[in-house]
Amino acid sequence: MTPLATLRRYLPILDWGRRYDRASLRNDLVAAVIVTIMLIPQSLAYAMLAGLPPEAGLYASIVPILLYAIFGTSRALAVGPVAVVSLLTASALGEVAAPGSGAYAAAALTLAFLSGAVLLALGLLRLGFLANFLSHPVISGFITASGLLIAAGQLKHVLGVPAGGETLIGIGLSLAGHLGDVQGATLAIGGGGIVFLLWVRRGLGPFLRRLGLGAGAADMAVKGGPVVAVIASTLAVRAFGLADQGVAVVGIVPQSLPPLTLPAFSPQLLRDLAVPALMISVIGFVESVSVAKTLAARKRQRIDPDQELIGLGAANIGAAFTGGFPVTGGFSRSVVNADAGAETPAAGAFTAVGLGIAAMSLTPLLHDLPKATLAATIIVAVLSLVDLSILRRTWRNARPDFAVVATTILLTLLMGVEIGVGAGVILSLALHLYKTSRPHVAEVGLIPGTQHFRNVLRHDVETAPGLLMLRVDESLFFVNAHMLEDLLRLRLAADRGIRDVVLMCSAVNVVDFSAEEGLEALNHMLRDAGIGLHLAEVKGPVMDRLRDTHFLHDLNGKVFQSQFDAWVELTGTAGPQRAAE
Amino acid sequence: MTPLATLRRYLPILDWGRRYDRASLRNDLVAAVIVTIMLIPQSLAYAMLAGLPPEAGLYASIVPILLYAIFGTSRALAVGPVAVVSLLTASALGEVAAPGSGAYAAAALTLAFLSGAVLLALGLLRLGFLANFLSHPVISGFITASGLLIAAGQLKHVLGVPAGGETLIGIGLSLAGHLGDVQGATLAIGGGGIVFLLWVRRGLGPFLRRLGLGAGAADMAVKGGPVVAVIASTLAVRAFGLADQGVAVVGIVPQSLPPLTLPAFSPQLLRDLAVPALMISVIGFVESVSVAKTLAARKRQRIDPDQELIGLGAANIGAAFTGGFPVTGGFSRSVVNADAGAETPAAGAFTAVGLGIAAMSLTPLLHDLPKATLAATIIVAVLSLVDLSILRRTWRNARPDFAVVATTILLTLLMGVEIGVGAGVILSLALHLYKTSRPHVAEVGLIPGTQHFRNVLRHDVETAPGLLMLRVDESLFFVNAHMLEDLLRLRLAADRGIRDVVLMCSAVNVVDFSAEEGLEALNHMLRDAGIGLHLAEVKGPVMDRLRDTHFLHDLNGKVFQSQFDAWVELTGTAGPQRAAE
Repeated sequence: MTPLATLRRYLPILDWGRRYDRASLRNDLVAAVIVTIMLIPQSLAYAMLAGLPPEAGLYASIVPILLYAIFGTSRALAVGPVAVVSLLTASALGEVAAPGSGAYAAAALTLAFLSGAVLLALGLLRLGFLANFLSHPVISGFITASGLLIAAGQLKHVLGVPAGGETLIGIGLSLAGHLGDVQGATLAIGGGGIVFLLWVRRGLGPFLRRLGLGAGAADMAVKGGPVVAVIASTLAVRAFGLADQGVAVVGIVPQSLPPLTLPAFSPQLLRDLAVPALMISVIGFVESVSVAKTLAARKRQRIDPDQELIGLGAANIGAAFTGGFPVTGGFSRSVVNADAGAETPAAGAFTAVGLGIAAMSLTPLLHDLPKATLAATIIVAVLSLVDLSILRRTWRNARPDFAVVATTILLTLLMGVEIGVGAGVILSLALHLYKTSRPHVAEVGLIPGTQHFRNVLRHDVETAPGLLMLRVDESLFFVNAHMLEDLLRLRLAADRGIRDVVLMCSAVNVVDFSAEEGLEALNHMLRDAGIGLHLAEVKGPVMDRLRDTHFLHDLNGKVFQSQFDAWVELTGTAGPQRAAE
Repeated sequence: MTPLATLRRYLPILDWGRRYDRASLRNDLVAAVIVTIMLIPQSLAYAMLAGLPPEAGLYASIVPILLYAIFGTSRALAVGPVAVVSLLTASALGEVAAPGSGAYAAAALTLAFLSGAVLLALGLLRLGFLANFLSHPVISGFITASGLLIAAGQLKHVLGVPAGGETLIGIGLSLAGHLGDVQGATLAIGGGGIVFLLWVRRGLGPFLRRLGLGAGAADMAVKGGPVVAVIASTLAVRAFGLADQGVAVVGIVPQSLPPLTLPAFSPQLLRDLAVPALMISVIGFVESVSVAKTLAARKRQRIDPDQELIGLGAANIGAAFTGGFPVTGGFSRSVVNADAGAETPAAGAFTAVGLGIAAMSLTPLLHDLPKATLAATIIVAVLSLVDLSILRRTWRNARPDFAVVATTILLTLLMGVEIGVGAGVILSLALHLYKTSRPHVAEVGLIPGTQHFRNVLRHDVETAPGLLMLRVDESLFFVNAHMLEDLLRLRLAADRGIRDVVLMCSAVNVVDFSAEEGLEALNHMLRDAGIGLHLAEVKGPVMDRLRDTHFLHDLNGKVFQSQFDAWVELTGTAGPQRAAE
């Protein structure tokens, strides 16, 4: 690769930046204004969810978005604090410091730095494929459970009680213990906020569409709901002096651009946060890439997952040095950005400028914003993540996947995110390996009038006496290396008339060293019994692998290109095809 | 299953016991006498290797062999202390107690009990297949490294120095530090023993065979070598009063049948020994089953791995309550047993009687047996386990397996058995998953004059313009769920003329929920691009799985039974086959 090409690969901005024009500028500016307005309450809310002061949410939405604009490959992805990553942040930091303390905020910087370092390292080593090990059921289960956990965790703000708890049971017990302390005014604001936001989402959107508003404009109005709730509840607090009646408000937020901060680097802290950082990186990456791919597919653009790792890594390191906390590409903010017409990452840069202005000048207006309203916006937002339909869909015809979803949801709710996701990943790998360790092997016969072979139990096929044709439906490797030997020992004991065995290898993609030994043993067993062992439809890569092995050398039979060739030769019938030649 | 059949399954003795006759009795008795003589020095040696008093080796060879005779399925397997398991025992016990202490011997009982419990549980749950996860390269690498470690660890007895060390480097450094303390007489006995035993093995055996002795008899003479060495060196010690000159001898061994003992069950000890017990169970089981299978194959008998787990479990629990330590089916003792003509497990029972007599009456004769001789027998025995040829064989055409062997050997030697085997298992799984996450996908075409489709890059095949036929060489599941989408996006961008894509699914054995979503996304992508997506050669189980899914419902194309059917319909050419009908 030329130095310039390398530079372009690592700096996608060089690509779109060259072609930037006035029309793109106008569209990006419009999108940025809309996104900025939406992001102000969202940033404050997710900072609260992460257990951090409100300004951290604003800071985490400024520099990271700028760095992603330089290094990221998605044109519309908006990077900043998101619900699930904020939950993971709170759960990780709760282990090392008390929420609200200086150590807690410093540890948030360290966590962002570590996540950024992990993401960068994975990107530079081009290990983006590792995210594939999080299966769809694990991700779905985890997101659903996180949505429920987050919503449950925010109820304390809606009720105005000092409850705690990390797991669903812990939160429930803690809330139950504080039921006597519920504050009426807070509940009115929080409960009212939830009802209003749900109505906006479920009632207003369809209503506006019926009025003839375009779907995009109607959605935009729905997305504006939280802004309306924030303004209305802030004005209510101020008008009725509710802060004096015990309604918790955001309070004093410093007027400042993001400060320059240094993460704490004590060895103990780095050790404690290493696993959570890895988790946040991988989950944040998976979430971000799936959003980016969805948006890119709409416009036929391309996402490079390895470069995305670099973009998100830079964003998190940026967050670490500017008073933020771990960030990733968020679904709702990105969709708003795309719907509002953003054409290039410059829209993100303009959003950053907008948020910078807000951080410097608008924060006094936020003083009387009730925390209950922020909690209401979080609850309504995360409940849309909860999707239990996957349980029904996997139960029908993908039971192993059902087991994985159910395990992930239950363990995440009851024992926390790390155990839930870890168990989900291990269970999905274990179930897959269990399946491959006991593969399906079909006895096949010829479908009359064709050269095609199918399972004798499912199709009406021709077979020949003394000829056993087996289709092995799995790669042969250590977990099933001796399966064929065991299976044929039983089969031969039951049927003494077998003279030839043909293994149809169309589904054998790999033969490892253990399986090679297994095949050798099988060959010896069949040879001792006076039975021929033949292979058919062995693929190129497998044939390359077996060439020059003892097994192929001593093979007590032949290797046929196709199953039909084996049939023709071993049954002595000329195939219809050959007859015609 | 009838109660009687259940009883027969769990008590194989009911099966062979019914048909036991005079001829079998004579053969079993002869075999038992030979094996008893061989087992006396071997039992003492492996007890020493495990860090236990010599009588523990005798005890561990008595009751376990009886219990295995009742519950085990192999006709010739001899159960007792073996080298590798004794090494694992020493390494586990060294973590919890000082060798030679009472706590050490009690912990050995606990370890045997835990291993027995694990084996029994695995057997009752029919989880014997779990042993398949130890691939051939991991087992080979581990056995080779263990052989080297054991031999190195025994050098201290040959040199007569009080060295220690657990890893190759540790042992080497410790020996180097004691080079000044080497005892001449001990070295003469130990070194002489090694030279003699190597000569017996490499020189005497071939010599006797050249003299016309049968291979069996010659091998038997070779196996008798250690007995000769034991007798000769014991007489030498007595004759020259070498014990007074500092030659370490076995010393006083109590004259007793195996005592009734109770393992220690403190929670801390159980926790500390849980992982080593699991390891010993699985490794001991794998070793034992492979020996049993080899012997059974010679006589066309059958081994039931799940029942073997029960037999070995019972044997270990027996060891725990009769002053023993962890045992398993050993290679050399089993081969001698089989070669000496053992026909049924009764031979094992007679061996137990023989060893019982030895434990009661012959132990005073062992007083002057030098430990250096025992060490020499161990060293020569385990060096035959060392097989570095697997490194060469895997290097040639199975590089991932090479990586696994090399890692297992190196880490076992340098960091101990648990880390070595653990890393080997994890690496073999990871390499397999890595491979399946980036599967081989071949573009195929029709081999002229047949109905067989092959890789266009390897074979001279027909293709058709606008028709892309891809053979997917892997099951579709979460680790590669989006691979086809990514691959086709690139392929379609490069070739704008494609109108139809046929996925030849002969190697797709599984489609999980994640892959179903991936296929749906692929279908949408192709539909939006006006390209048809077709499937061919979908197997029965996969078709069952996909029936009633959104993907198949919305499929923008057809499902063909064979690739040839797809070719005929999509190219509009009548196949030669159809033309003939």
